[in-house]
Amino acid sequence: MTLNKENRTELNEFGEFGLINHLTKNIKIKNLSTIKGVGDDAAVIENKDKVTLVSTDLLIEGVHFDLTYTPLKHLGYKAVVVNISDIVAMNGKANQITVSISVSSRFSVEAIEEMYSGILLACEKYDVDLVGGDTTSSVSGLYLSITVIGEADTEKIVYRNTAKEGDLLVVTGDLGAAYTGLLLLEREKQVFKANPDMQPDLEGYDYIVGRQLKPEARTDIQKVLEGIEVLPTSMIDISDGLASEILHVCTGSELGCTIYEEKIPLDPTTINAATEFSIDPTTCALNGGEDYELLFTVSHNDYEKIKDVMGLSVIGHMTGKDTGTNLISGSGTSVPIKAQGWDALR
Amino acid sequence: MTLNKENRTELNEFGEFGLINHLTKNIKIKNLSTIKGVGDDAAVIENKDKVTLVSTDLLIEGVHFDLTYTPLKHLGYKAVVVNISDIVAMNGKANQITVSISVSSRFSVEAIEEMYSGILLACEKYDVDLVGGDTTSSVSGLYLSITVIGEADTEKIVYRNTAKEGDLLVVTGDLGAAYTGLLLLEREKQVFKANPDMQPDLEGYDYIVGRQLKPEARTDIQKVLEGIEVLPTSMIDISDGLASEILHVCTGSELGCTIYEEKIPLDPTTINAATEFSIDPTTCALNGGEDYELLFTVSHNDYEKIKDVMGLSVIGHMTGKDTGTNLISGSGTSVPIKAQGWDALR
Repeated sequence: MTLNKENRTELNEFGEFGLINHLTKNIKIKNLSTIKGVGDDAAVIENKDKVTLVSTDLLIEGVHFDLTYTPLKHLGYKAVVVNISDIVAMNGKANQITVSISVSSRFSVEAIEEMYSGILLACEKYDVDLVGGDTTSSVSGLYLSITVIGEADTEKIVYRNTAKEGDLLVVTGDLGAAYTGLLLLEREKQVFKANPDMQPDLEGYDYIVGRQLKPEARTDIQKVLEGIEVLPTSMIDISDGLASEILHVCTGSELGCTIYEEKIPLDPTTINAATEFSIDPTTCALNGGEDYELLFTVSHNDYEKIKDVMGLSVIGHMTGKDTGTNLISGSGTSVPIKAQGWDALR
Repeated sequence: MTLNKENRTELNEFGEFGLINHLTKNIKIKNLSTIKGVGDDAAVIENKDKVTLVSTDLLIEGVHFDLTYTPLKHLGYKAVVVNISDIVAMNGKANQITVSISVSSRFSVEAIEEMYSGILLACEKYDVDLVGGDTTSSVSGLYLSITVIGEADTEKIVYRNTAKEGDLLVVTGDLGAAYTGLLLLEREKQVFKANPDMQPDLEGYDYIVGRQLKPEARTDIQKVLEGIEVLPTSMIDISDGLASEILHVCTGSELGCTIYEEKIPLDPTTINAATEFSIDPTTCALNGGEDYELLFTVSHNDYEKIKDVMGLSVIGHMTGKDTGTNLISGSGTSVPIKAQGWDALR
């Protein structure tokens, strides 16, 4: 935070309601499904003949984010995006969020406004209404709890446990970038701690730092798939690393899978950074997490439709359960896929 | 917590997914509107021709609850009830909740199970499905974030800002009990801190201690009002004290009000306890909070229907905005109503 003392308003200058009113006073409702937003005991939402999707995430300072290198505006933006990503992973459209924050007196009103500006920026970009929430003090640190509400056509919802044997495994974009971005930010933090006069050296790494600090939800993929008339047979977003998500799909669908290391999409910057940190780039993709790309399965009959679509990579296929979950390495050896992904209960 | 060391399982013996699975494995879905509960990126809810209501609350150790005298099972129960109360205050029916918890390693798996048993007991009692959530570690303390999803007929939703001039102000049950219960528990905590051999002296105070530790949501009032064919013109639940809620209704409806001190319903135990603490019982009702009773307005034409209903008290009426918000004391003097209610950003 670079806010100077003169611009600091203490949180206790507002009451609880005062702060909520202050933060939400300029909110305009955009979605027709939002009948009533902030300001009553509950928000009112009308989805008519569609079903309602609900997902929730809790983000905690010192566990999920480090304010040393996470600007508060980015934090707010990312917190909304990761929730929208869960709705996208059901093949739905996010329409509303509620935001609950708990902050210690270390934070000024201006700091919370900065975080809210990121939250509202994401709402603007993804066409989502902020319809409620809670604001309280905390004993220490910053806690952010977001619930997202979305809608979907019943016949278009895609679950994670409905893959079929022989289906192709497809991922969007590239993987592992957010994790290498985190490694870089952590390194620069240590450098800064050792010598506060040092400036962070992130040159050439904009892409991976951006992937860590300002991820986006793949709302564009729905249109791409509708355009080629493909409905995934199962889908999940890649928040905890490819390995963990593949295992969710396999376990849920009671199947195994085979994926090919050389098919896993990696950005050159990710490969460079991983090499610099002496880590296998594939490990970053499998276990790094926070990419918020999509992993989905399609019928093998859809191969011709999907194979040349920019930004989609077929990385393998679903097998019977007995085959297990296998990664075929570049050299042709088969290794079992294990989830060593982010474990929030470290 | 009275759990002995031998029965203590450390949280890190489960991973994040392990703990969620462990806590939710026995959950059975009861509501027809719950299409998909725990286990995918989002829960799926179908409310057909009804609208969806969403409300959220964040409860923080050291701010909203004190585990010295709050059993974890009661905490879980109360956390669900206060959310259901928000849906009741919209004249809706709560159907689903999501539960996000953040706990430090101070807590064992058994302690979290105990809290979940209270959460699930409330779900059972109020016919609510637990459909999702998040489980993470915290740097310190226990954080509990609950979002409740409900349904209502569009034409039966009751907002807080739709009272009309001349409407009667009605409250359910009695007020101030939860606050005097809190005062008592705080006193016994201080006694215990001074001398750990002392046993808490709560005799004769079961009622107010129960109101603090195990409140209930007034789901029964909907049937009562339907039975006498009264639809409130506005409604809010009394979570922050009667004064604060009345001001919400008045401000929202752009009206004033007059209420009568002698009409505010108080339980004899509340009066006794308040007297013991040298506090005016009316102050407990106005500013105490956490009663989770309902405050609503009805047309003055409904007075005959409502006046003899057990458990409902007409405490005053809505006036023009210019009259202000006034409490007529027992001696006949008029004092402006001010919200000194619980301020979570103390």
